[in-house]
Amino acid sequence: MKAGIIGAGRIGKVHAKNISMFVPEVEIKTVADPFMNGETEKYLRKCGVQNVTKNAEDILQDEEIEAVLICSSTDTHSRYIMEAAKAGKHIFCEKPIDYDLGKVREAIRTAEDAGVKLQIGFCRRFDHNHRGVYHMVQDGRIGKVQMIKISSRDPEPPAIEYVKVSGGIFYDMMIHDFDMARFLAGGAEVTEVVAAGSVLIDPAIGEAGDVDTAVVMLKFDNGIIATIDNSRKAVYGYDQRVEVFGSQGCVRNENDVPNTVVLSDAVSTTCENTYKVMWDRYTGAFVSEIQAFVEAVEKDKETPVTGMDGLYPVLMAAAATKSLKEGRPVKIEEVE
Amino acid sequence: MKAGIIGAGRIGKVHAKNISMFVPEVEIKTVADPFMNGETEKYLRKCGVQNVTKNAEDILQDEEIEAVLICSSTDTHSRYIMEAAKAGKHIFCEKPIDYDLGKVREAIRTAEDAGVKLQIGFCRRFDHNHRGVYHMVQDGRIGKVQMIKISSRDPEPPAIEYVKVSGGIFYDMMIHDFDMARFLAGGAEVTEVVAAGSVLIDPAIGEAGDVDTAVVMLKFDNGIIATIDNSRKAVYGYDQRVEVFGSQGCVRNENDVPNTVVLSDAVSTTCENTYKVMWDRYTGAFVSEIQAFVEAVEKDKETPVTGMDGLYPVLMAAAATKSLKEGRPVKIEEVE
Amino acid sequence: MKAGIIGAGRIGKVHAKNISMFVPEVEIKTVADPFMNGETEKYLRKCGVQNVTKNAEDILQDEEIEAVLICSSTDTHSRYIMEAAKAGKHIFCEKPIDYDLGKVREAIRTAEDAGVKLQIGFCRRFDHNHRGVYHMVQDGRIGKVQMIKISSRDPEPPAIEYVKVSGGIFYDMMIHDFDMARFLAGGAEVTEVVAAGSVLIDPAIGEAGDVDTAVVMLKFDNGIIATIDNSRKAVYGYDQRVEVFGSQGCVRNENDVPNTVVLSDAVSTTCENTYKVMWDRYTGAFVSEIQAFVEAVEKDKETPVTGMDGLYPVLMAAAATKSLKEGRPVKIEEVE
Amino acid sequence: MKAGIIGAGRIGKVHAKNISMFVPEVEIKTVADPFMNGETEKYLRKCGVQNVTKNAEDILQDEEIEAVLICSSTDTHSRYIMEAAKAGKHIFCEKPIDYDLGKVREAIRTAEDAGVKLQIGFCRRFDHNHRGVYHMVQDGRIGKVQMIKISSRDPEPPAIEYVKVSGGIFYDMMIHDFDMARFLAGGAEVTEVVAAGSVLIDPAIGEAGDVDTAVVMLKFDNGIIATIDNSRKAVYGYDQRVEVFGSQGCVRNENDVPNTVVLSDAVSTTCENTYKVMWDRYTGAFVSEIQAFVEAVEKDKETPVTGMDGLYPVLMAAAATKSLKEGRPVKIEEVE
Repeated sequence: MKAGIIGAGRIGKVHAKNISMFVPEVEIKTVADPFMNGETEKYLRKCGVQNVTKNAEDILQDEEIEAVLICSSTDTHSRYIMEAAKAGKHIFCEKPIDYDLGKVREAIRTAEDAGVKLQIGFCRRFDHNHRGVYHMVQDGRIGKVQMIKISSRDPEPPAIEYVKVSGGIFYDMMIHDFDMARFLAGGAEVTEVVAAGSVLIDPAIGEAGDVDTAVVMLKFDNGIIATIDNSRKAVYGYDQRVEVFGSQGCVRNENDVPNTVVLSDAVSTTCENTYKVMWDRYTGAFVSEIQAFVEAVEKDKETPVTGMDGLYPVLMAAAATKSLKEGRPVKIEEVE
Repeated sequence: MKAGIIGAGRIGKVHAKNISMFVPEVEIKTVADPFMNGETEKYLRKCGVQNVTKNAEDILQDEEIEAVLICSSTDTHSRYIMEAAKAGKHIFCEKPIDYDLGKVREAIRTAEDAGVKLQIGFCRRFDHNHRGVYHMVQDGRIGKVQMIKISSRDPEPPAIEYVKVSGGIFYDMMIHDFDMARFLAGGAEVTEVVAAGSVLIDPAIGEAGDVDTAVVMLKFDNGIIATIDNSRKAVYGYDQRVEVFGSQGCVRNENDVPNTVVLSDAVSTTCENTYKVMWDRYTGAFVSEIQAFVEAVEKDKETPVTGMDGLYPVLMAAAATKSLKEGRPVKIEEVE
Repeated sequence: MKAGIIGAGRIGKVHAKNISMFVPEVEIKTVADPFMNGETEKYLRKCGVQNVTKNAEDILQDEEIEAVLICSSTDTHSRYIMEAAKAGKHIFCEKPIDYDLGKVREAIRTAEDAGVKLQIGFCRRFDHNHRGVYHMVQDGRIGKVQMIKISSRDPEPPAIEYVKVSGGIFYDMMIHDFDMARFLAGGAEVTEVVAAGSVLIDPAIGEAGDVDTAVVMLKFDNGIIATIDNSRKAVYGYDQRVEVFGSQGCVRNENDVPNTVVLSDAVSTTCENTYKVMWDRYTGAFVSEIQAFVEAVEKDKETPVTGMDGLYPVLMAAAATKSLKEGRPVKIEEVE
Repeated sequence: MKAGIIGAGRIGKVHAKNISMFVPEVEIKTVADPFMNGETEKYLRKCGVQNVTKNAEDILQDEEIEAVLICSSTDTHSRYIMEAAKAGKHIFCEKPIDYDLGKVREAIRTAEDAGVKLQIGFCRRFDHNHRGVYHMVQDGRIGKVQMIKISSRDPEPPAIEYVKVSGGIFYDMMIHDFDMARFLAGGAEVTEVVAAGSVLIDPAIGEAGDVDTAVVMLKFDNGIIATIDNSRKAVYGYDQRVEVFGSQGCVRNENDVPNTVVLSDAVSTTCENTYKVMWDRYTGAFVSEIQAFVEAVEKDKETPVTGMDGLYPVLMAAAATKSLKEGRPVKIEEVE
């Protein structure tokens, strides 16, 4: 299968490298980026990319190319989805589709009408630890799900310039956790969101109109209650843990560690902290999500993260943002 | 020091036994209970109790008795606090003081006016694992506290008759966790409570007007955000864990286990579940709280769980109850 | 059941206290110790002991006393066993019976002839963690046992004066592990011992003719191979772990910890070390062994640690001592 | 740097793939194997290998090739080392160099005389968990090393045909652990070996003249005592753990697990077993050892596993074999 990648920033490069190393059935014919330069080209050539261009049209109009990975800036996602769909190409699009719910819906509809596959890049669903919890839940090992707890903390806040344009912590950071909550809930949907937020790490984040510490409580249509906590700064590393409690048990995961060494000295017993960098923790997840996309295309199956899976977290982020602002629970139907 | 115990139910007996085994500086002169019978008397005699009676007055009017442990039913707590205070006796009272905030305040004031010690029986503060977390926080090991997470799940729901008169999950069960949240927050006070609740375990609990699954989000006056989750039924045992996240790290605890055995067979690696019974988990805590009370009396220090520490969790339970009913965040000042 | 205790040193006192607190069916009528003094008497009275004496005969000739706990110095064990047996009393004797195999055998025979119960104080068999491993093995959870590994390390070497008269590390320290190896092997007996030893902690121990670091390899009659490692000084605490490997799996245990607190800061993740003191680790084991002894007497069952269980570890210590001296494997039959 | 690989069996292919994915500074010009076929060629071409041949001479006589990886059968290792050395090529050779000590010594000497780098493929030294322990020891975190414990157990015995020609468990399996013991001992050398062995898994292994369960005790020249235990069949997976005990503490590692999921249900708490396959556990180690070899060549440093590091484990295997046969400790000097 020949594929193209639109956007050669960090995530575009990661996908190019992963495909070259771990997805032999895909050939990356073309990568397009308006800021394409020599260094990027060199990197991509090493990954076996055949052509580089500044023009996404070179991909969209290439009849040989069956699938497109959209890794460009968020504001262009929905447009490229629609164009790729109209060109009959299967689509893997980084999250989120858009912050504008109208655009999200239009993009999804266009892909549906065109009969192309659409997968959204919620990579954490493919993480070995989260997927391990998911399988326990799916296999009925904990019975009926009753509560979900998600902790998701970054090692460092992003640059303040980024914070200003990020759409806020719910759109930028917790959106992954909104998706995770739905993933673990096994088909139930969120009906109501209550958010709390504080500025405890950097006052500049507050001045930019955002919070750096956020906790959200979710109510699902079947009575499940979930909590998500986010911090922009966990000094000990990239902390990503989930717990699902049910009628027959409780399943949770721990962070990965670089090694399993345990040292006991006169003072205490010490282990390694988890990873400090997202790419180290979710290395395998980025590979698996592409493998799953390729499998969906090749076997003509539904993608494991559909367009609707891309829509719901945006709805939840909108509800959380409104809840924080208005100091009250917000129903999803209020923001639909 | 000579002491009396009012109430010879389960908790009264536990205190009598613990004092006889682990608190040699206290002599239990008298235990009073309106339902005192031969079996109870026999048990108490073995614990070295000198006198048993059906009449609490035999304790309250005994000039030799310096301290009283109030272990009677909740509706009598505030009355006995006041009577014991007026009789000049130091008081250890089981939680909660009362569900009626006016009575709570009057009891506290009476004890203060009388200049007697008053300690409330929030035993979990004395648990080795929770106290271990507390000390890490107090010692500044995690910097400034930013988030608190408390999981507190019972192995089995109480009898439905008990549920009906319990005052609801927030007064009956989560009240311990409200206290724990304040304990771990290190001096900050809760300003707002949002509660979510579901009936997922037993419909009869819902018919009794209560929920069996409850999650609460707390906002503190310094920006700390806490979550508490309660379930009336965790099939794997009595699950009691806390986590405190701060600017310099994160500290949490795990449940105790009956032994540390790890079995790896062809299928998986298996360990023991935690205890199924409160008395096994908090064995040491029940001893330590009495030792701390005795120390406060003997060294004339403030008790480690004051009357005000007894008041706040009741306020929080009132706010949570109101929040669940009205579907909105409730400020503590609304219920004061 | 009325009992007497011969020897009111540390372990005699521990048994007296434990019986008073946890073994209500036993009444300690008399404690005898040639160095009995006021302080010891006071301690014992608090434990409910009725009489104290300097003369063991006061116990041995007391017809009311059914059982004797021999907690005197090792060189008197075999004599008291024989005297108590002849007096028809059931016997709990601290380990080892004697270093002289002839005396050990005579003591055992005398007890057998008298038809009294004899239990040896190998308390570790009653530790919750070791017993947990034992039960897994007994229940067939790891299939047929193939290898056993025992680590047993003290936090501090004993005083050098003690080392000089201790009989050496194999008699004084590893004797517990020899018993543990037999306990876990499930009925197989050791046929050959190879010992290695070094002086790595304190040259004075070497000058006293002993080693401070010792490793022993045991061969059992059914092919099981075991290793035991001992160190006189583990700076991180009293380290006691076992592992049993079999055809269907592997079971092991970890040390107990004072609490389950886990701290993650910018540097690492830290937990508590294990206990530093034997009495903290084996608290429950000292109680359980007495309860088991009492049960054996009352229900007329075989004691869980028989006289022969007292003999074998002495044989193994003799073989290990010989092996270390002669630099070769030593068969048990060589030292019998 | 251009390299050649002699031998395109399993390990040769692993190195080819790893170099293509993770060692961009190396170009594999030629792979030689007498059994080269179309399938193997196809695999190697995907790994970017330029030429395939049945003749090792095509590598040894190619002046462009700077380094050779010897992945052929053990009986050809020493010959190819000598030929490659004489051709002036740096050498990475799979373990063991040979079972014949004379050939091992001659190969090492030839490489030294030719002034080429020689690294032996003891990959476990590069495993993240073992290396983590090594670094703790090297950094002085446990003080002076006193005891070493190594458990190394395979999930399944090899085919009985293989067992017959393997040279026995000490040469075939424990040789890795002999190297690990030296690696962790930090410069001390083994002076004496005592071996115990049993046939507990498959009688056919015994009929082939080997044992399937083996324990070895090692004495080092500075008093360190080490134990190694091997089993040909651990039903729970590929079990590889080490522990180093010293004057200031103890450091150990645990196995890796596929994920960190923890399930608590009504029966117990369950985790994943470790990997069942060597290639999963030592994935990273195979990459790291080649990276280290390349670095040694490019920066003209000593290789991290020298020819002498290849010799010593063979000496230890010879001593262990002799010890098991003769039932006595064997000094290394007896087999030199």
